[in-house]
Amino acid sequence: MRYFLKLSYRGTRYHGWQRQPNGLSVQEVLETALTTVLREPVALVGSGRTDAGVHAGQQFAHFDTEMSLPPALMQSLNSLIPGDVAVQACFPVCPDDHARFTAMFRYYQYQVIRQKDPFREGLAYVFTRPVDVSRMNLAAECLLRYRDFESFSKVKTDVTTFNCRIDFAYWEEKSTGDLTFHIRADRFLRGMVRAIVGTLLAVGQGWLNVAEFEQIIEAKDRKRAGRAVPPAGLSLVEVGYPAELFSRR
Amino acid sequence: MRYFLKLSYRGTRYHGWQRQPNGLSVQEVLETALTTVLREPVALVGSGRTDAGVHAGQQFAHFDTEMSLPPALMQSLNSLIPGDVAVQACFPVCPDDHARFTAMFRYYQYQVIRQKDPFREGLAYVFTRPVDVSRMNLAAECLLRYRDFESFSKVKTDVTTFNCRIDFAYWEEKSTGDLTFHIRADRFLRGMVRAIVGTLLAVGQGWLNVAEFEQIIEAKDRKRAGRAVPPAGLSLVEVGYPAELFSRR
Repeated sequence: MRYFLKLSYRGTRYHGWQRQPNGLSVQEVLETALTTVLREPVALVGSGRTDAGVHAGQQFAHFDTEMSLPPALMQSLNSLIPGDVAVQACFPVCPDDHARFTAMFRYYQYQVIRQKDPFREGLAYVFTRPVDVSRMNLAAECLLRYRDFESFSKVKTDVTTFNCRIDFAYWEEKSTGDLTFHIRADRFLRGMVRAIVGTLLAVGQGWLNVAEFEQIIEAKDRKRAGRAVPPAGLSLVEVGYPAELFSRR
Repeated sequence: MRYFLKLSYRGTRYHGWQRQPNGLSVQEVLETALTTVLREPVALVGSGRTDAGVHAGQQFAHFDTEMSLPPALMQSLNSLIPGDVAVQACFPVCPDDHARFTAMFRYYQYQVIRQKDPFREGLAYVFTRPVDVSRMNLAAECLLRYRDFESFSKVKTDVTTFNCRIDFAYWEEKSTGDLTFHIRADRFLRGMVRAIVGTLLAVGQGWLNVAEFEQIIEAKDRKRAGRAVPPAGLSLVEVGYPAELFSRR
């Protein structure tokens, strides 16, 4: 039987979602707790990686087991895992539903704040220089006309294509002056959102104009794009699945 | 010359506002930074103490110096202190303005959440049992009819009177089921808000009725009141000063 977990986590203390030899990952924390509760080794497949320090307001993962789930599974898991990771739901799906491949889109937000805030430390990027938000939005609109985003991908990567379908990409300015970048796509390349945000902030400061931003996309060369912004501002906020997934049984 | 500082801090890592021998306090962090910037020993007087683990969305403190303040004082201080403390303003006041004695009221909020939330870890009390919020509000209303709150004061205290004038005290229920307790008074006794919240949650669960809550106030005996709730849910959100204070010069 296959189950989906709905999760959220604050990524500050973790080396990202993905299990790895040199550092604690969210996947490892959850697999260890599931293995304890179900008394058999459990492997999780996430909807996708998030990098070290990146958060997830919503993340999904699946696992397979023939064990019957204890009635208080969620409470047990939540008491076994630290306070910066939470399990919000666990539900059965079909055997061919897949946390990664069944997902139709991923939606990320990047938070930029204009002054130090003790309550958002590790959750936002403090960036105080003035920026022209409408210029950044003109540049962000260009993204929708392209498919290949190699210019914003980490060089070390094992993907076979750099193609992504971006559904939307825009900056929202709050009355406080704080900024949120919203971007949704079918898939993201490694480091892509942070490289796009860094390059758009260069546009906002007048270091690049919109035409130059477009040339950077067209160059398919990571060296042309701007510096990646820090991971703390980035959150995976929604993973899109077909509505039927949530009512398989 | 006397100056006021407007501050905020996340209290998780601190042994409260007040400087003390056995643990890092917010006051110590700020005094050290001010002493570095002004190159002379600086002592701060806060509007009041906050306990270990308690936060401040707004806190004020004053200090005296004959040094002229450097133009970028706030930026210097903010870069010297950790990310969980922020200086939001620094302004001159009259020599007899006093962070503690000039304050007319303190306003605290206590956050209760109904399920684990990685983004509010250390900022709210996770309390999942059902409560009757209208009963808790009936009990909270009683507080306004009394002046002596010895029943909700820590036993070890050096105050000469237990009298407080409570301006308001009520529970707000969000659509998510999360609860915020709002309380404003001219002064608070040590541990008072957390003891009141703990006792009101006992009322909400039906362990005490409203008449018994009132008897607890009248008893003036800390042993009669309920257990204090954890500090993480508590924040000082406003300190009230006369409007003129902010425009002395």
